[in-house]
Amino acid sequence: MDDILRLELSELRSLALEALLGVGCSRDQADAIAEAVTRAEGDGAHSHGLFRVPFYARVIRESEAVPDARPVLRELAPGVIQIDGGMGFAPLAHRVGLPELVRRARSQGIAALALRNVFHIGALWHEVEALTSEGLVGLAFTTSISHIPPAGGARPLYGTNPMAFGWPRAKGPPVIFDQASSASARGEILLHQRAGKPLPEGWAVGPDGAPTTDPAEALAGAQLPFGGYKGASIALMVELLAGALIGDLFSFESAERDRAGIEVGPGGEFVIALDPGRCLAERSPADQAAHAERLFQRILDDGEARLPGQRRYEARARSQKEGVEVPRALAEEVRALARGARGA
Amino acid sequence: MDDILRLELSELRSLALEALLGVGCSRDQADAIAEAVTRAEGDGAHSHGLFRVPFYARVIRESEAVPDARPVLRELAPGVIQIDGGMGFAPLAHRVGLPELVRRARSQGIAALALRNVFHIGALWHEVEALTSEGLVGLAFTTSISHIPPAGGARPLYGTNPMAFGWPRAKGPPVIFDQASSASARGEILLHQRAGKPLPEGWAVGPDGAPTTDPAEALAGAQLPFGGYKGASIALMVELLAGALIGDLFSFESAERDRAGIEVGPGGEFVIALDPGRCLAERSPADQAAHAERLFQRILDDGEARLPGQRRYEARARSQKEGVEVPRALAEEVRALARGARGA
Repeated sequence: MDDILRLELSELRSLALEALLGVGCSRDQADAIAEAVTRAEGDGAHSHGLFRVPFYARVIRESEAVPDARPVLRELAPGVIQIDGGMGFAPLAHRVGLPELVRRARSQGIAALALRNVFHIGALWHEVEALTSEGLVGLAFTTSISHIPPAGGARPLYGTNPMAFGWPRAKGPPVIFDQASSASARGEILLHQRAGKPLPEGWAVGPDGAPTTDPAEALAGAQLPFGGYKGASIALMVELLAGALIGDLFSFESAERDRAGIEVGPGGEFVIALDPGRCLAERSPADQAAHAERLFQRILDDGEARLPGQRRYEARARSQKEGVEVPRALAEEVRALARGARGA
Repeated sequence: MDDILRLELSELRSLALEALLGVGCSRDQADAIAEAVTRAEGDGAHSHGLFRVPFYARVIRESEAVPDARPVLRELAPGVIQIDGGMGFAPLAHRVGLPELVRRARSQGIAALALRNVFHIGALWHEVEALTSEGLVGLAFTTSISHIPPAGGARPLYGTNPMAFGWPRAKGPPVIFDQASSASARGEILLHQRAGKPLPEGWAVGPDGAPTTDPAEALAGAQLPFGGYKGASIALMVELLAGALIGDLFSFESAERDRAGIEVGPGGEFVIALDPGRCLAERSPADQAAHAERLFQRILDDGEARLPGQRRYEARARSQKEGVEVPRALAEEVRALARGARGA
């Protein structure tokens, strides 16, 4: 157990914050990233947690990312606002845009936030959870780097393009899903490779376009969308919403900008917020919420079925009480960044 | 070829219209349905085409559907309008709401249409194509009748819940997908049953919850979502958007209202419209459209890859020139409805 460290979430957050400041982030950028990383770690999503801090350092060093960028808000229409992230990171851009998005969703019933010129490295569910915390319904979409071929094609074009959706609940945590358009996360393929295990069928094709269960072949080839051509349709929709619609890059264009091959580039994100109280007239908001609960109860009544996000909330409850365990080597690496080392 | 009839689309439309009037539809309801049925037939979607007219007759006879309902428009918020369909059919409700939805999308940047108390029997892509024809981006969601279990569950809860998305194009038809949340359409299972063919793996489970390739077992059991739990997430989102959000029924509630077991019940539909010109500031709409075309070109450059909807547009071009073929028996059945027969 000596190689594992137990940290309170507040300690982990400070550790991340100091490291991000150490690698050149402004206090605002560092604070927003540290919050995102801490929440992910607390929710059991280690791949978005402290592990990501050395990666942020690398992105700052090897890409166009601007670690002290100041996001700028602009109104595009009564229901649409834009944040230009100035090539900084998504957490701060989203934090700056959120209050205005919430205000507009309440006054207009539905509103959208176009995040441009950001580096999106973290989890997308934070964005929709920020909306559900305000009693709003949220949808979020972001592109990434080309890994998925179009339906019927063989060459990587779409990113793993996650889409997230959230529904607020009066009692207990919101119902949120945040899922990639690929059958598997890229990180899962890397984990299989590290463990020397073959991939499940249906995850990937090799460089020759033929199905493969070999992680190395998969990484050199393309990841398959979930559910065949239907998942590819979702990936295409994400490209259009978070790319062309808001005047930002497609995943293949982000990939072209990723000269160092670090698997992240500048891009956009699109968020839609709905005020459920403004979407119906015949029922009170309380009745509307109770109606949704009847669906959730049906789900929970069906044997092994669970609501999306339940595992995250269980991890969250645990880590708020007991803190989290992180590899000592990772904590040391992050601590070194705070002292001015250059990162992974 | 004697049992097949070739009809111009205008003839097919008249045939459908007269039949719908014959079974009690008001002229407005009948005209909107006849248009939807004709477009589906012309697009090669026979299961939503003339074939559906006797089914409309049956729905009118055996459900709460009100064939002469007048949809009522109401503003819920600057960006949200509601159409109460009065238990009529979706095509007229959508037709009544469309101009106001388009106006609001242009003035607000983003707007939503909540269709309540409608029977939705047709294809969802018409709704988004109506938006793309106005240069708007569209999303549409509708519930159906419980056929899909929740992730990890075994009992039907969600409907086959289609979701449609459309992107307008300056030249040529829009890019539109319209896809069920189930791995297969219910009609495809029926076709396999009729042909005495086993189902592909992954489409369904039997009443015992175990995977099956037997169509009868599948129809008595449950249809699987596309792409496993991720497709189930999409189905859940559709339930919440087209159900609780707008104060309408979930698929399991629609199923409870379907006392005659005709596989359709009253329900809701949710449509989001975006004006792409209001979602960015740095590019002209022409540059925005050209940007999207670069993505489409990449798709088309990849061997066998196609844009969603291409097959429909090819069928449309053919049927506009050559008309469509329909079984003579079906045409006779529809003709009989016009003369006052009671329908299938």
